Amino acid sequence: MKKQLQKFVMALLLTSGVCSAQSQTSVVEDFKPSSVNQPGKEYPMVNSEGRVRTQISAPGANKVQLDIGAVKYDLVKDEKGVWTGESAPQDVGFHYYQLNIDGASVPDPGSLYFFGAGRWGSGIEIPSDDQDFFALKDVPHGELREVPYFSKTSNSVRRAYIYTPPGYDKNNSKRYPVLYLQHGMGENETGWGNQGHTNLIMDNLIAEGKAVPFIIVMENSGVNFERPRNPRPENTANADSTRRRPGGPGGFDFAGEFKKILLNDLIPYVEANYRVAGDMKNRAMAGLSMGGMQTRLITLANPDVFSQIGMFSGGSISMDDIKNTPDFKKNVKLLFISYGSRELENPRGGGFGGDPKVNTQSLKEAGMNTHFYVSPGTAHEWHSWRRSLYQFAQLVFKN
Amino acid sequence: MKKQLQKFVMALLLTSGVCSAQSQTSVVEDFKPSSVNQPGKEYPMVNSEGRVRTQISAPGANKVQLDIGAVKYDLVKDEKGVWTGESAPQDVGFHYYQLNIDGASVPDPGSLYFFGAGRWGSGIEIPSDDQDFFALKDVPHGELREVPYFSKTSNSVRRAYIYTPPGYDKNNSKRYPVLYLQHGMGENETGWGNQGHTNLIMDNLIAEGKAVPFIIVMENSGVNFERPRNPRPENTANADSTRRRPGGPGGFDFAGEFKKILLNDLIPYVEANYRVAGDMKNRAMAGLSMGGMQTRLITLANPDVFSQIGMFSGGSISMDDIKNTPDFKKNVKLLFISYGSRELENPRGGGFGGDPKVNTQSLKEAGMNTHFYVSPGTAHEWHSWRRSLYQFAQLVFKN
Repeated sequence: MKKQLQKFVMALLLTSGVCSAQSQTSVVEDFKPSSVNQPGKEYPMVNSEGRVRTQISAPGANKVQLDIGAVKYDLVKDEKGVWTGESAPQDVGFHYYQLNIDGASVPDPGSLYFFGAGRWGSGIEIPSDDQDFFALKDVPHGELREVPYFSKTSNSVRRAYIYTPPGYDKNNSKRYPVLYLQHGMGENETGWGNQGHTNLIMDNLIAEGKAVPFIIVMENSGVNFERPRNPRPENTANADSTRRRPGGPGGFDFAGEFKKILLNDLIPYVEANYRVAGDMKNRAMAGLSMGGMQTRLITLANPDVFSQIGMFSGGSISMDDIKNTPDFKKNVKLLFISYGSRELENPRGGGFGGDPKVNTQSLKEAGMNTHFYVSPGTAHEWHSWRRSLYQFAQLVFKN
Repeated sequence: MKKQLQKFVMALLLTSGVCSAQSQTSVVEDFKPSSVNQPGKEYPMVNSEGRVRTQISAPGANKVQLDIGAVKYDLVKDEKGVWTGESAPQDVGFHYYQLNIDGASVPDPGSLYFFGAGRWGSGIEIPSDDQDFFALKDVPHGELREVPYFSKTSNSVRRAYIYTPPGYDKNNSKRYPVLYLQHGMGENETGWGNQGHTNLIMDNLIAEGKAVPFIIVMENSGVNFERPRNPRPENTANADSTRRRPGGPGGFDFAGEFKKILLNDLIPYVEANYRVAGDMKNRAMAGLSMGGMQTRLITLANPDVFSQIGMFSGGSISMDDIKNTPDFKKNVKLLFISYGSRELENPRGGGFGGDPKVNTQSLKEAGMNTHFYVSPGTAHEWHSWRRSLYQFAQLVFKN
């Protein structure tokens, strides 16, 4: 009896061993270095299934894991102390991830770093069929400018990123429309440029004649969430004010201090220093997730400031919302609402302020120029928002 | 006898234990978060002695070390699995560093990341008495622009960072001098902006009237050493060409492909797209370390292109070097050579092409406008180069 049990357990172990080996061999072995690796780094890699494989030398470690999509995958150590392993298939597009080495959560030294989830950390790109729309091509390029400016509201020098379209400095008489474009919670003013490829999306659209050239202003709507990339020394007057972070890491500022910074400091700075048209007709606001919710609150409360509105995975606007603001219906010439398809599959998806498709349709029936876009096969992640910007940019400032 | 030996060894151990404890207690407990920490991160910290203390939770780890200045310092684990420890005092200024967790070299998740030593990794700032010259202040600010441009030499879209001084977009008739400013080996086009604070140094100097406003162009003189921050997908035409990295990580390109890129592609692009004066009198080249050596080779070989030259910790120019190039002596209106004082203490320091002070003095005696600057108390590191730029910028384009 005891021997039979032993035999059974042994068979079970062997079987599970075989299963494990099978799941290993079922991985398609066409891994290539990720397009967002550090220079010269082979790992992390991505295969045609969207699996992420990473590798790190840690001869003294007991346990190393790849932490992506809220799942931790064990890596396996070879005789040289090099750990390797891969994740389940991931959605196309951009994902944040990290390594876990004996309990320490650290960036993967193989990847480039991006600001999200409240920290600079690793990111990976799962190739998609449509990634050509943000590819770097030999077309006329705009510039992404790092712009320090003084904000009275925060009493500090803050940092905006400003995209100026190709030819901006060549034609000194032309004035441009301007879009204020906001990131999500736990992200900052670098997100739309780095993860979002805003400048490349716009350069390509403008080259194809699919979008009118406009300026894009990206600021930190988590307010003092992060200090600028250019750090300040401890002893400067600005260090204290920029260390105040009302939101804290992951800070969530709906329409308080950021609204004041935007309306009282940022828009006046941009209009005084850039060749923008400077009227409501030529002023747009859009954002993703928290940035979409901020767009919703700020544009509803200021229907004489913005005429073009985009909300990406950040709620929608209903007939109820605008019943007491007749100016909103009159002034707003574009309302664009979008979600990733996987968000809508989730019963909680798109729930901010009611069903986004129904809401958008009802405003359309009431005579407004509304658009509802669903990004196929993506969730609450950057590929949904890149595609949303790509769609939105083709509609904005054309009414 | 055996017992006596045991006693002696025990005493030795106790003594060394006491010594170790003393060296612990001799650490000055005035640590403050580093000025280049990620938002909300308490560690790493720096004290008034210039020691770096870091901390990381790694409950399962066997050994965690802080790796800075080519020395590894053991961290100590507490009962919760949190490791803490500090380095010996470091020189003032900026240093690259990393953590080592059970043999894995990884970035510290507490710090911001900088490109140096061939990788994006951790950096720390040891406060200096003179750091006010690169502090972020409420003065008029220039812009740091990320500029994609097409290079025929590399047959790819490359990335430059271009600093435009305050007011550049306001005065459409003014034309500016331009400085081509190069990084060191294992660094890239982001170094002068991030670690070097080029834009803040210039904004402050211009606000005080100590420098004439000029444009600064920063490109990757390791050639295709790094792909741009904005990554390209695998399937684009540019991906292949930008993956070619003749230098490889740590790539060293003296005067080959980079010289062609600079002279044939970058300078023409800048002169066609920016309001630069566009003559030799208003064209400068400077660089640090490898960038200084590139400056030396390129300016000596092209005495009709640059009239203002800066070499920071990157060699010097002797009478011998210019004996066959009479145009060099005639055309060059400023030659600025600098080193960190700790480099000159080293017998190998400043050795590229002879004693830099002697060389500079002999050119001065021959009638050239030369300057020799020594940064006090710093080595072959960024604080030497920030100070060098600060000095150079007050001299350049004034002859």
